Amino acid sequence: MTTAATPAVRKTSTRLADGRELIYFDDTEPYVSGAATRRLDDPRPLPDRFAPVHDEHGDPQPVTGPELRRDPLTGEWIAIAAHRMNRTFLPPADANPLAPARPGATYQDGEIPAEDYDVVVFENRFPSLLAVPGLTEGPSDRDGEPLWTVRPAAGRCEVVCFSADPTQSLRTVGPRRMRTIVEAWADRTAALGALPGIEEVFVFENRGKEIGVTLHHPHGQIYAFPYVTPRTARMLEQARAHTARTGRLLGRDVLDAELRHGARVVLESEHWVAYVPFAARWPVEVHLAPRRDVPDLPALDDDERADLAVTYLALLDRLDRFFEDDGTSIPLPYISGWHQAPVGEGRDVSRLHLEAFSVLRAPNKLKYLAGVESGAGAWISDTTPEKIAARLKELA
Amino acid sequence: MTTAATPAVRKTSTRLADGRELIYFDDTEPYVSGAATRRLDDPRPLPDRFAPVHDEHGDPQPVTGPELRRDPLTGEWIAIAAHRMNRTFLPPADANPLAPARPGATYQDGEIPAEDYDVVVFENRFPSLLAVPGLTEGPSDRDGEPLWTVRPAAGRCEVVCFSADPTQSLRTVGPRRMRTIVEAWADRTAALGALPGIEEVFVFENRGKEIGVTLHHPHGQIYAFPYVTPRTARMLEQARAHTARTGRLLGRDVLDAELRHGARVVLESEHWVAYVPFAARWPVEVHLAPRRDVPDLPALDDDERADLAVTYLALLDRLDRFFEDDGTSIPLPYISGWHQAPVGEGRDVSRLHLEAFSVLRAPNKLKYLAGVESGAGAWISDTTPEKIAARLKELA
Repeated sequence: MTTAATPAVRKTSTRLADGRELIYFDDTEPYVSGAATRRLDDPRPLPDRFAPVHDEHGDPQPVTGPELRRDPLTGEWIAIAAHRMNRTFLPPADANPLAPARPGATYQDGEIPAEDYDVVVFENRFPSLLAVPGLTEGPSDRDGEPLWTVRPAAGRCEVVCFSADPTQSLRTVGPRRMRTIVEAWADRTAALGALPGIEEVFVFENRGKEIGVTLHHPHGQIYAFPYVTPRTARMLEQARAHTARTGRLLGRDVLDAELRHGARVVLESEHWVAYVPFAARWPVEVHLAPRRDVPDLPALDDDERADLAVTYLALLDRLDRFFEDDGTSIPLPYISGWHQAPVGEGRDVSRLHLEAFSVLRAPNKLKYLAGVESGAGAWISDTTPEKIAARLKELA
Repeated sequence: MTTAATPAVRKTSTRLADGRELIYFDDTEPYVSGAATRRLDDPRPLPDRFAPVHDEHGDPQPVTGPELRRDPLTGEWIAIAAHRMNRTFLPPADANPLAPARPGATYQDGEIPAEDYDVVVFENRFPSLLAVPGLTEGPSDRDGEPLWTVRPAAGRCEVVCFSADPTQSLRTVGPRRMRTIVEAWADRTAALGALPGIEEVFVFENRGKEIGVTLHHPHGQIYAFPYVTPRTARMLEQARAHTARTGRLLGRDVLDAELRHGARVVLESEHWVAYVPFAARWPVEVHLAPRRDVPDLPALDDDERADLAVTYLALLDRLDRFFEDDGTSIPLPYISGWHQAPVGEGRDVSRLHLEAFSVLRAPNKLKYLAGVESGAGAWISDTTPEKIAARLKELA
């Protein structure tokens, strides 16, 4: 299947040997992943993910997927992802599973069955959320207890490779490739949101060993949740109350207030504004919002996408240099995620924005989420949003 | 001021040189902290915490405390604790500020002006929450923006030293000292809850360098919040809905369901039950609840307190050994916090319980709170509550 998401980007969808979907987003002719000399199929000896697992007696056991359990104390869904799956294939420890396949490779050591690519998205081999065929039932009681509600964690987890070059980072891919990544994000948001049961699509990147990233190949992730996540639920609640009270969009009023005040606005382009929010909770935190009211990435027009590609790279460049005066040569570890309108509710009160933040308080000094944050959900910031903003402005 | 909280414990309240309160809880005669040869006053040259700070021109500047900012996107209060305070005195880097004062010491290197103590509680020198005299006003708009609500973070942060011996841990203090600590916890909960404006008292311990603890002297903390914390607010919401629906207490029904099922109950005593909750979110997690419905620690009777002292140490012992078969000699790092009824609301639907959990998935392997948890508030567990419970039972 090949469709032209935009004139510049060719989308090619294929399947890996175990049934997972893999999608190339090519932006440069000759389209590398589709070139005749490269293979699009996946000849690895990967078993079907959903084939029965055999127990020690050789008896087939049904494959179970991850499940969601409702925490009776908070009402939140917790994904229990210790499910049994076919996991016979593992790349060698020193292999980079996100690298393109080497010429002549038997594809034993990587996920991507092409010798080059521009941007590629594929289903995570070890997903926390997974729609297992046949497991489509809704919530039910476990062990006959009405307080113990379970349901299949029937979502989808995708990996987005930003570049075939493992030495790059998202910041260094350049605006053209970034534009393709924006295209891929928007495409996946729309496609995943159209899957049955999906309630929210969360596009994000974890960067840096300080937050547990072990794979340094530049990549991000996308989670398609079968429920509205707690942070989005809180934001929806506030957005609904604000609209009911004022008739206006909360995200719009937040952006307008930051623009009016100006002191925390760190970057402005024709279509985008980056600002440190009034009540930033992380040692480094910045939000990026479009000037136009849109619910999600697919709603961005061509000009906004092109501008985003340039503006986001400029923002990442400043984040990378946040602690450079302190003698660190390590780019800032960060988490960056797009907050989009949920799929099936609250779209009229939601407004797209990105939140990028770091757990680093200083070079080699982490903010730990200890008792107060992890136990009580209460946040203490050791800095001020104004200081974070002043630093990010200084790096212009 | 000396009161007998129980026949066995003598409470002595004093003030440090900078005005902070310090309270000894002595359980062994002769009461060490009050012995005639030891000093109860604090002769250190600590400036008054609330004296004006002078700027570079020598002009006095008003002391400001930490502030709370309301996050307009979520409605949650964020404490901004980058306030200017008198911080002229700092102990030397190699000093242990929680150790008893050495004989003849000038009290330059520690917080506690006594040469020995059993249990001592004092106000944190660098508090995230602080009631600054004169700053008692309520919420107001910052910069004329109605979305930017601020108020003083007028709470209190206390440190609880579990032992004068820096080589101990809470697990090793013994049931008699643990009983004194329970007394101190209950005393402080009642005393802090009675302060003006306090809405919730959170008693907790962070243990282990893996969660950022740099001070190895055995100690815990108590935060008195001027607001109901987000996790408590969620639990209240669920508890109220459950009571409205069933007429029963949510905490009671959760405990009864765990007892009925039994598979995740790891420890039972006459008055207490420890269980891994149905929807545990951490790699190691266990809750401890009293058999009798009580809202908070002060409501525990003598028998329940005495039993708690023994039972909690038994639970900590199992936590410490959680990964011992994996060849680690490091006791489990953990966070342990008491969830008590808020001070001014929901006391009729709240039920006391402790939540202890660890971020360690395996020796030297942390669970990082990355994009999904930190960005979306969505939790993924890589294990099952049943596996955690099986391990904790095996350690009996």
